[in-house]
Amino acid sequence: MGIGEAAITQLLKPTLLKLGGSAITIKQRPLTPDKDAITRLAKEIKESDISSLILVHGGGSFGHPLAKQYRLNEGYKDSSQIMGVSRTHQAMTILSRLVVDSLIDNKIPAIVVPPSSCIITKSGRIESFEKNPLIRMLELGFMPVLHGDTVFDWDVGFAILSGDQLVSSLAMKLNAERIIMGADVDGLYTADPKIDLSARRVPYLTPTKLKILRRRVRKSTVMDVTGGMLGKMEELIPAVERGIPVIIVNAAKPNNICRALKGEEVVGTLIERA
Amino acid sequence: MGIGEAAITQLLKPTLLKLGGSAITIKQRPLTPDKDAITRLAKEIKESDISSLILVHGGGSFGHPLAKQYRLNEGYKDSSQIMGVSRTHQAMTILSRLVVDSLIDNKIPAIVVPPSSCIITKSGRIESFEKNPLIRMLELGFMPVLHGDTVFDWDVGFAILSGDQLVSSLAMKLNAERIIMGADVDGLYTADPKIDLSARRVPYLTPTKLKILRRRVRKSTVMDVTGGMLGKMEELIPAVERGIPVIIVNAAKPNNICRALKGEEVVGTLIERA
Repeated sequence: MGIGEAAITQLLKPTLLKLGGSAITIKQRPLTPDKDAITRLAKEIKESDISSLILVHGGGSFGHPLAKQYRLNEGYKDSSQIMGVSRTHQAMTILSRLVVDSLIDNKIPAIVVPPSSCIITKSGRIESFEKNPLIRMLELGFMPVLHGDTVFDWDVGFAILSGDQLVSSLAMKLNAERIIMGADVDGLYTADPKIDLSARRVPYLTPTKLKILRRRVRKSTVMDVTGGMLGKMEELIPAVERGIPVIIVNAAKPNNICRALKGEEVVGTLIERA
Repeated sequence: MGIGEAAITQLLKPTLLKLGGSAITIKQRPLTPDKDAITRLAKEIKESDISSLILVHGGGSFGHPLAKQYRLNEGYKDSSQIMGVSRTHQAMTILSRLVVDSLIDNKIPAIVVPPSSCIITKSGRIESFEKNPLIRMLELGFMPVLHGDTVFDWDVGFAILSGDQLVSSLAMKLNAERIIMGADVDGLYTADPKIDLSARRVPYLTPTKLKILRRRVRKSTVMDVTGGMLGKMEELIPAVERGIPVIIVNAAKPNNICRALKGEEVVGTLIERA
């Protein structure tokens, strides 16, 4: 028995939206969601009326403090970390639950997909990824929601999978249309715009220029176990080199995410293959 | 870099514990957990000191009313069901969160693994299953927690995967030591013991005898979209035929689950290959 033809939509190239942990949590206060931001962003996604979207969110104050406390980025060192893995994963599923609840409240058929259930890494890099459930969800009009997570690793026991590595890998595996990175700044800067007045936004970049920039400027100093903004962008270079453009916009400014999803111009940084 | 030798435990044959929805929710009241039972069962699991355990729980009053309301057992019929799938999955993740939180409170390193993330069905039967994360979790000493779920299906769009089909499939794929079914009755009866005074408990069965019993007695009338007790047991026959014994015990009676996990004798029904 097949499903009705009305249900079979040709799989559109999906858009990937990353919402950084700083966009949806109060970064300075452990385990504190930014509920207003989560609600607003869910409404913006609904208003954009986009089809074929995968949402990936970061950990912010849910994931990072616990991951740091148990030194999870070092992999398995001793048995005291085992409960730390469970607790960090627990915190991430609580945050993800808040995001998905807000999407469902806005009548978006979201389904949470914890990476630890379908991804295995090898020394911290994605080795295998069960993508069929995601493909089927997109075909049927669901919105999969993934997140940075503690994942299990063939070499080092467990690892922290950043939302950025996840976005890049998903984009390539699912042949994405584009990647929208929702940050808490207006794009990629020559220095950290939060502490350096001389920082200038870079509106357009190619992977080659990104590599040059990396050598020239000092790394972003924002505390983040998965790296600063430039580190985040480096994760995305392989996707850009395959022809998937990346747009960095400020998710903290109302309507930016909605407009970016609609394909409208937004202040930010565009990274694409020359 | 490999992990320390202390961390590498040879993968023991896991025990599978199914906790029926009626054991952990108030079945008559939608979306109502039985928090006392969840807390007690988490303590019993901790006290048993078992290594290599996978927990699977049912939906009870979290999964069934929503699944019924949206006719999810019929597969994709019309687009109004889409939000129903999201809401049913949402309800199941909320219940699973309560179970896992209680395990973590008892210092058990539990990790929730939603079946919709790692399983695809074909006309309601499991077709593919990404089992590597589960294997790695067990090797490292974690306790994976799965649950009955809405899953995505190649033929019919989506399907309800019962905890019973899941337990049987997991047991065979992971070469389980045994399956413990925690029910709300003392075992398998010749009729529904809750409404029929003539019902007798069957202490021991083989798959052949189970098939004969099925022909003889009327099916359990307990309302359950995934079938009554005899239907549940039929799902387990393939695992029993491969040599994996099934023990049905009453999870509502204190210490039964702890004793069953320890391998002690408990009033119930044992089903095993002759």
